[in-house]
Amino acid sequence: MFTVTSRDKETRARSGMLNTAHGEIPTPVFMPVGTAGTVKGILQRDLAEDIDARIILGNTYHLYLRPGTEILKSAGGLHRFMNWSRPMLTDSGGYQVFSLAPNRKLTDEGAIFKSHIDGSRHVFTPENTIDIQRIIGADIMMVLDECAPFPCDHRYAEKSVALTHLWLERAVARFRETDPLWNHEQLLFPIVQGSTFDDLRKISAEKVASMGMAGNAIGGLSVGEPADEMYRIIEIVNEILPENKPRYLMGVGTPVNLLEAIGRGIDMFDCVMPTRNGRNGMLFTSEGVINIKNKRWAGDFSPLDPSGPAPVSLYYSKAYLRHLIISGEILGSQIASIHNLSFYIRLVSEAREKIEEGNFKKWKDQMVKKLSERL
Amino acid sequence: MFTVTSRDKETRARSGMLNTAHGEIPTPVFMPVGTAGTVKGILQRDLAEDIDARIILGNTYHLYLRPGTEILKSAGGLHRFMNWSRPMLTDSGGYQVFSLAPNRKLTDEGAIFKSHIDGSRHVFTPENTIDIQRIIGADIMMVLDECAPFPCDHRYAEKSVALTHLWLERAVARFRETDPLWNHEQLLFPIVQGSTFDDLRKISAEKVASMGMAGNAIGGLSVGEPADEMYRIIEIVNEILPENKPRYLMGVGTPVNLLEAIGRGIDMFDCVMPTRNGRNGMLFTSEGVINIKNKRWAGDFSPLDPSGPAPVSLYYSKAYLRHLIISGEILGSQIASIHNLSFYIRLVSEAREKIEEGNFKKWKDQMVKKLSERL
Repeated sequence: MFTVTSRDKETRARSGMLNTAHGEIPTPVFMPVGTAGTVKGILQRDLAEDIDARIILGNTYHLYLRPGTEILKSAGGLHRFMNWSRPMLTDSGGYQVFSLAPNRKLTDEGAIFKSHIDGSRHVFTPENTIDIQRIIGADIMMVLDECAPFPCDHRYAEKSVALTHLWLERAVARFRETDPLWNHEQLLFPIVQGSTFDDLRKISAEKVASMGMAGNAIGGLSVGEPADEMYRIIEIVNEILPENKPRYLMGVGTPVNLLEAIGRGIDMFDCVMPTRNGRNGMLFTSEGVINIKNKRWAGDFSPLDPSGPAPVSLYYSKAYLRHLIISGEILGSQIASIHNLSFYIRLVSEAREKIEEGNFKKWKDQMVKKLSERL
Repeated sequence: MFTVTSRDKETRARSGMLNTAHGEIPTPVFMPVGTAGTVKGILQRDLAEDIDARIILGNTYHLYLRPGTEILKSAGGLHRFMNWSRPMLTDSGGYQVFSLAPNRKLTDEGAIFKSHIDGSRHVFTPENTIDIQRIIGADIMMVLDECAPFPCDHRYAEKSVALTHLWLERAVARFRETDPLWNHEQLLFPIVQGSTFDDLRKISAEKVASMGMAGNAIGGLSVGEPADEMYRIIEIVNEILPENKPRYLMGVGTPVNLLEAIGRGIDMFDCVMPTRNGRNGMLFTSEGVINIKNKRWAGDFSPLDPSGPAPVSLYYSKAYLRHLIISGEILGSQIASIHNLSFYIRLVSEAREKIEEGNFKKWKDQMVKKLSERL
């Protein structure tokens, strides 16, 4: 399922290959977020060819509400519905229930919430989120968890971890007693929680490791805590999560966060930052971070990024993209999203190369400096 | 400049070739509208390769306000600014002043208006709209005219035509005394006005024809009048506009309008309908018009249009596009726009083929029937 192909000598970084029903995924890997069955503003063809996304993410919460499981079922799953033939991962919907849905309520049974679209009432349980993800048919499914808010006190975090573990057992049981619907294997990843408390993170990592799933995830980070706390938690957790299985750091982060996490043994990432911030005019480039709305770019006809992670990075100028974003033109969102995703994916695959070449540490330190520049 | 390559025997339709500084344009031709230096939601690459737009339109009003002539000048014109190497046409901005700008006021001198963006005060004159279009650098420029509202009385229309003709003379004079800025030839097309009054349209067509420009346009149609009135006016005007020059029907229209106008001797079209209506979920297909928001498409996994004018028409299903449009996803606008523009452009180039094959009339009658279907 997962093979570590190379280990860095100076850090905990490793490269690997994750096999899924829809193809091999070289790791470390960055997964573009395709919330409602679309990576916002990007044609599937461009996602595969220009951006070369090896795997994308879907949000169970959004897909469950729209188009809904009935449509997804009659389509034969999300791969067919959106015509995407490469691997796919779905989260459990838990995170969105807490961040988007009004009037949500947690019980041991599950999460009761109202749709942010029409106010209708729904329940997510550890069991039905597996069932829904069986219908969606992603190659990798996630268990329902509670992502504790930051900051939260130890007492809250402890109860939250206990609930997450209770749900974990039930989700794994449901996973084991059900079969995929679409003739391809689906994996299930459990999620480590515990806020920024070392003891809880250790307990949670032990619990997660003990489930023997094909891969493991770390949730509840990049929710407001300082980066150093995040890095410390990753180190603590990765001491415990098995070496021979992929480790997925959920919802993280900036390019620097990615490199630091790779150096601490993380293999998989997803984040809305390249697309969401891109739509708002923030560009990640080989020369540093650019706020394209800044007046300084108004007459700069040089390419978006001369290192050219995507064709659009060379085709379009800073002045033109600025004009589009300032004017609220859709094309601005498209160009910025394609560029940023390509930048992220190239960065992570460069990290992979450096790990295999044995000079990850030196390269990472240089890149972290460069990527911290604001132009 | 323009050669009629074939004439239909049963109708006034003709095929031709229009030579511009940025390439040959086979006519009849449909020109996608690229308002502010972007055809909304479409990458330049896809516009050229998937849609095969031979020429696109820019709006002087929008470009003048944003990014403004200073930026366009330092970019070396709009072709370079937006990196589009095929032909381009710009309108004079008059139409937008009347439809978008608040507090506009007409004088013999020109049109005084306030920006719809920031309320700043501006003046368009026959002369400065030529100067602005010299900076933009489109292959084809348009004269400033007044597009009379519909309905309007004969007295208003008569005065409006007189003003339009006064402006026409001044625009042509400015055109003759200025040179292109970007080392390529620019043509200027005058515009026939006169509302739905036959006598005024005749007078205006005579005036326009007498200017001896490289091509001529008909404005002020498709502004609310019945289609039959529009067709009648086109017939009257095209009796007068010279045979050996291209005739451009501005801002028209539905696929059926296009075919009927081609049958009456029109060579060039532009319209926001394929993009604007597309963004709103209206699809023009080989099987008829589709409102993709309709519940009936929710579970229809067949391709958008099996006749496949664009790759997206076959790649994406009706159910998927419906989901995207209903969910307000940008990708929905992109797919619908690419499909609709490809549909329009293929329809018009099919008309060209039929004219050259000598069976336009029969094909047109069949198509008009098919295209009037609402699915």
